Amino acid sequence: INRYNGVTIKSEEQNLEDIPLFVEQLKESLLKWKGEKIRGIWFQVKKQNSALIPSLIEVNFEYHHAQPGYVMLTKWISDTEPNGLPHYANQYIGVGGFVVNDNNELLVIQEKYADRRLWKLPGGHADPGEDLADTGVREVFEETGIKTEFVSLLCFRHQHQYRFDCSDIYFVCLLKPIGGKINPCQQEIAQCTWMNIEEYIKLPDLTETLKHITQCYLNITENGSISITPERINNYNNTCKNNIYSVGHIQL
Amino acid sequence: INRYNGVTIKSEEQNLEDIPLFVEQLKESLLKWKGEKIRGIWFQVKKQNSALIPSLIEVNFEYHHAQPGYVMLTKWISDTEPNGLPHYANQYIGVGGFVVNDNNELLVIQEKYADRRLWKLPGGHADPGEDLADTGVREVFEETGIKTEFVSLLCFRHQHQYRFDCSDIYFVCLLKPIGGKINPCQQEIAQCTWMNIEEYIKLPDLTETLKHITQCYLNITENGSISITPERINNYNNTCKNNIYSVGHIQL
Repeated sequence: INRYNGVTIKSEEQNLEDIPLFVEQLKESLLKWKGEKIRGIWFQVKKQNSALIPSLIEVNFEYHHAQPGYVMLTKWISDTEPNGLPHYANQYIGVGGFVVNDNNELLVIQEKYADRRLWKLPGGHADPGEDLADTGVREVFEETGIKTEFVSLLCFRHQHQYRFDCSDIYFVCLLKPIGGKINPCQQEIAQCTWMNIEEYIKLPDLTETLKHITQCYLNITENGSISITPERINNYNNTCKNNIYSVGHIQL
Repeated sequence: INRYNGVTIKSEEQNLEDIPLFVEQLKESLLKWKGEKIRGIWFQVKKQNSALIPSLIEVNFEYHHAQPGYVMLTKWISDTEPNGLPHYANQYIGVGGFVVNDNNELLVIQEKYADRRLWKLPGGHADPGEDLADTGVREVFEETGIKTEFVSLLCFRHQHQYRFDCSDIYFVCLLKPIGGKINPCQQEIAQCTWMNIEEYIKLPDLTETLKHITQCYLNITENGSISITPERINNYNNTCKNNIYSVGHIQL
């Protein structure tokens, strides 16, 4: 029982040898909890206990989320309050690398599997638990062979109705090349090259988004290099540090 | 079959009257697909077909994600390539409202259910599909009764190992009050008040994060009001507009 008046049940801690018997006991428990003003139930079913799932659906549990290894089901039992169980995470994070070299050239790629052959920024999705600046550096290296370091965030886009009805935030990181040669990823990348930025922004088939991102870069170079940069700040009980991004000045 | 050489199966389009027979047919199909260089399978099981899940787990399907109404299972069948199926969304988005009135006072709250009674910013999680600035305005109104409009993003924090092993981005929006009286949400909020900003930043029990956020506000007021503001930019095929946030100047 947690501070929100909820009960959490884990399948691997239950005796599931006789599932019909277990379901009868569960029904009794649900009645008892309702009398005790419990509001909602979380039921985590491990992969090896999956035989239990059809029975839980029959007593009106609903799917909440799943990850490799388990499914989480929930049941809201309060009659007096609306369902207060929080949603599961529903945002993707992607990062694009805006890599400019000393000759004012931008690192651009063409994808192997794409509807149109456009010159795009290298980039990809964040791995679980990965900080966004690290994602940018990693993806640029994997896709192009160029090693970089983080300078600033240029901008980010919040997009809805993305995959599986989730939203997506695409962060564009300004990165400085620090080594390596162009060596495109064979699986994903068809072509990779350095291209003069003034030429890049004039490409006739450039999307409005890529044009805007490039303009953001030109703006910060003209406006005294105002940037969005992270600082490492302690969390509330000083057990770890988090990056907090805010505006500042950088030397380009 | 999609462009990544994957197969998608939907439970409601299958004949599931005889589940053991269906599983035998599925096993044959898996062997055939493997011969055809198919790389991975997506299997969406609707709630009403949940009886199928234990059989899919037996033939080594793995949980990918679930939402109210269905579970998505996957199976990677290529022997020659590593599992290339993308992860599900794993980021939460929360928004805090930094609401300052004409008297240089900040709108702060104390939560009803909290370990410590701290003066915090109002805010909460984004609803599915909701733009972050809208979340800030909505949450401030729900929690405090104050109506606001979006001015700028102040900063954001990227935090890992949050709920269910997901990450969380906490965006702090600078908002301008445009009406309403303080009327705290009875369920969630214990106290709500306007507090002078210079006094707020000196509170002895303020977390380092809240101090930093407040300092971000003081910095932008002193530095010619540099802000992080969105522009509406067309998507790649001009079917909708997305917000892209970048640095700019605002009038405070």
